Amino acid sequence: MFLGDARIVADAKDADGTYRRIPRPSEIAVDPQAAYLHVCSNNTIYGTQWHTWPESGEVPLVADMTSDILSRPLDVSRFGMIYAAAQKNLGPAGVTAVIIRKDLIERSRRDIPAIWRYATHAKNNSLYYTPATFAIAMMRHVLDHAVSVGGLTAIESTNREKARRLYAALDAKPELYRVPAEPDSRSLMTVTFFLKSPEADAKFLAEASRRGMIGLKGHRLAGGVRASIYNWVSLDDVDALADLITGFEE
Amino acid sequence: MFLGDARIVADAKDADGTYRRIPRPSEIAVDPQAAYLHVCSNNTIYGTQWHTWPESGEVPLVADMTSDILSRPLDVSRFGMIYAAAQKNLGPAGVTAVIIRKDLIERSRRDIPAIWRYATHAKNNSLYYTPATFAIAMMRHVLDHAVSVGGLTAIESTNREKARRLYAALDAKPELYRVPAEPDSRSLMTVTFFLKSPEADAKFLAEASRRGMIGLKGHRLAGGVRASIYNWVSLDDVDALADLITGFEE
Repeated sequence: MFLGDARIVADAKDADGTYRRIPRPSEIAVDPQAAYLHVCSNNTIYGTQWHTWPESGEVPLVADMTSDILSRPLDVSRFGMIYAAAQKNLGPAGVTAVIIRKDLIERSRRDIPAIWRYATHAKNNSLYYTPATFAIAMMRHVLDHAVSVGGLTAIESTNREKARRLYAALDAKPELYRVPAEPDSRSLMTVTFFLKSPEADAKFLAEASRRGMIGLKGHRLAGGVRASIYNWVSLDDVDALADLITGFEE
Repeated sequence: MFLGDARIVADAKDADGTYRRIPRPSEIAVDPQAAYLHVCSNNTIYGTQWHTWPESGEVPLVADMTSDILSRPLDVSRFGMIYAAAQKNLGPAGVTAVIIRKDLIERSRRDIPAIWRYATHAKNNSLYYTPATFAIAMMRHVLDHAVSVGGLTAIESTNREKARRLYAALDAKPELYRVPAEPDSRSLMTVTFFLKSPEADAKFLAEASRRGMIGLKGHRLAGGVRASIYNWVSLDDVDALADLITGFEE
């Protein structure tokens, strides 16, 4: 089934197969005939994040923001479409939030089954079928909570401080830790780092687990250690990890 | 996008556009070349239900059991595939259970996107993407509960008694109530009935609401009154409605 051609317009992959940075503007050549330009705003495997959106001219910019939506203020008007599965910052798994420009809904192709067309869901108030009601109700509570803590400006400020503390602790001990993400591309949500060997990574993870910190193992494609400091991970949580980073000895 | 031809092999629609019964075996002519024969086991709009499965020979039988799975013992081996959204008997909305024969997974077409192929999900242990975790956890609790109350035999026996009490109360007052579903086709999950006029239906629903019984309004396509007596509606709940049916006067 032919649904469309995808073309990679920028790829910042290193010679060793890892992604240390976000593509630079000069590396992004958008075909003006393209239906859209797609980015994934945060890379949860390698710990990089878009901090400035690429220019796409008249071509609609589409972003998968699953792992950093609601983490910072967002100029929605820059995007043709934003989509985000809930399970990082928005609420429990089972629902995907979609923000799409009305003209793109109208323009969408009609030769695919109704259930896979955004127009169907827009027309039916997102109730074309019975959705994941619990996840939606919880997302509403999370959004209320986000407002109650000061909204996106306050949330971003906390997120920046959380990331700053972890990267500072890591950068202070270059003899022990390596952060592959380049400073300009470092993610505020996903702090990925390596010790000097897989064995040292494992010892670090074991000590973290002993202190009650779990889920820190790096993605299977990258290895190492990965701290997913999504919105509702607190400064205190981050400090507990920063203390371990600072005090850890093999 | 051409996905396949659908052919209606049996249609028991009445002259007035309603469905009072399940098609009879003699009305079902299955094309031996068909990929599958599809039935919806329970009609939640008109209150009919398959009590004997159609014969489909070598053609796989596929059933949408969303509204009556787990309500009675089931010979799974009769089916090529069974699917059921959770939100009636299985748990909260957001997940669909699929039971499919291995050979049908193998035979499924490969020219559709990976995410829409059952093979993808079977291979990935239903974790190809992050699923609706809360709904799945709750479904597990519901299944445990189903076992704890005696399993499907006990559940069916209660369901039969629930339906029997409601239909008996309705049939006892033919001057007030009409059950469109024919006796052989009556649903044990969805009891649909009408009073003598839409105004009488409305009065009945208002009195039900006054007694704390809500959600009884008929489907917008059918009108009337509809009691969805899914598994976890108790005999006591049903008795409260039967009392209203018996005692109601306009």
